[in-house]
Amino acid sequence: MNILCLDLEGVLIPEIWQAVAERAGLGELNKTTRDIPDYGELMGYRMDVLARADLRFSTIRAVIDGLEPLPGARAFLDWAREGWQVIIVSDTFYEFANPLMARLGHPTLFCHHLQVRDDRIAGYRLRQPDPKRSVVKALKSLNFPVMAAGDSYNDIPMLEEADKGILFSAPERVRREHPQFAAAESYGDLRALLGAQN
Amino acid sequence: MNILCLDLEGVLIPEIWQAVAERAGLGELNKTTRDIPDYGELMGYRMDVLARADLRFSTIRAVIDGLEPLPGARAFLDWAREGWQVIIVSDTFYEFANPLMARLGHPTLFCHHLQVRDDRIAGYRLRQPDPKRSVVKALKSLNFPVMAAGDSYNDIPMLEEADKGILFSAPERVRREHPQFAAAESYGDLRALLGAQN
Repeated sequence: MNILCLDLEGVLIPEIWQAVAERAGLGELNKTTRDIPDYGELMGYRMDVLARADLRFSTIRAVIDGLEPLPGARAFLDWAREGWQVIIVSDTFYEFANPLMARLGHPTLFCHHLQVRDDRIAGYRLRQPDPKRSVVKALKSLNFPVMAAGDSYNDIPMLEEADKGILFSAPERVRREHPQFAAAESYGDLRALLGAQN
Repeated sequence: MNILCLDLEGVLIPEIWQAVAERAGLGELNKTTRDIPDYGELMGYRMDVLARADLRFSTIRAVIDGLEPLPGARAFLDWAREGWQVIIVSDTFYEFANPLMARLGHPTLFCHHLQVRDDRIAGYRLRQPDPKRSVVKALKSLNFPVMAAGDSYNDIPMLEEADKGILFSAPERVRREHPQFAAAESYGDLRALLGAQN
C-alpha cells in the first residue's frame, strides 16, 4: 500500500486566494506561488493587501463556503482512496479549507493555521519549515512508498522527496523547469500515471 | 489542528481474528494481543493454526466482507473527522481491512501487508519495528499535537508517545497496569475526553 500526497489548490479545489480576489474585487490577491515562489514573501504581500482593504475573515470564509471542488475532483479522489492512503499536503490553512474538506469526504489534510483576531486575519503560523518535503520524509520514515502530485513551485520539494513525483495541471514554465517529473493534464492522465505504479 | 491516532480493531470494527475464529470454528484464533502481548509470537501462533486447518485466504476475506463497523463507530468517526485529522493506526493488514475501510468512509489507515500465495496466507510483513510508536513520532516530527486511543497492549507504545493517550474499551487488566491513561468505555466517553482537548 503506497501513500499518495496530493496538493490541494489547483489540484482538487480552486485557488482560494484567486477566488477571494475575484469576489472581493481585489485583483492584487491573484498572485500565487506560481508568481512569487517564496511563500513567506507571498503571504506578507497578501496580508498587506488584506489589511489595506480591511477585509473581514468572515467575508473570506463566505467566499470559500461558496466554492466547490474542481469538476471531477471528488470522483478522482474517491478512486484514489481505493488504492492509496491519500494525504492532502497543502500550504493553505485549516481555517480556510475545512468547509471544502467536508465536500471531499474528509481526506486527511496536513496544512497550516491562521491567526484570526477581531474577525481579521492577524497572522499565520507555518507548521514547520519546508513543510511539504518534511511530510514526505516523515512518511518515508514509516517505510511507506510515497507518490506525490502538485501543480506549483511550492510542490517541487514534495515531488523531489517522493519516490515518484507528478506535475498536475502545472503551468508550462514549471513543467519546463522540472522535466524530471511526469506531467498530467487531467484526472484521466493522473489516474493512468498512478495506476501504472500500483 | 491536532491529529487523532485511533486503533482499529476493538475500537471501530470487531476483532477480525475473533470473527474468523467464530465463523470458521477455530476457537484457537480467539487469542489477541490482550492474551499474547508479543505480536510476533501471536502471529506465529495464528499462522500455525491457519496452516493446520488449511484455511483459504478467500474464506477469511468472505468472513471479513460480512463484518460491519461496531455500532456507533461510523458516527463517532464522522464526528472526529470534523475536529481532527484522523489516522487509523493498526497492526492488521490492508488485505483484511480494506472492505471495512470503505464502510468507514476511507479514513487514512497505516497498517501492514499480508503475503498471499495460492489463496493461502503465506506470511506477513510488518512495515517497521515498533510501528504504532513510530507513527506518532513521525507525526510529532511534523509539529502536530497528537492524541491517541486504543484498547490493547499493542497500543501502549502509541499512547505513551502521544501527547495524550486514552484507553478505549480496554480490559480491566490493561487499565490497571496503565493508570496514567484516561479510560473511555463508550464513544460518548471518548468524545467527552477528546472534546475537552480541542
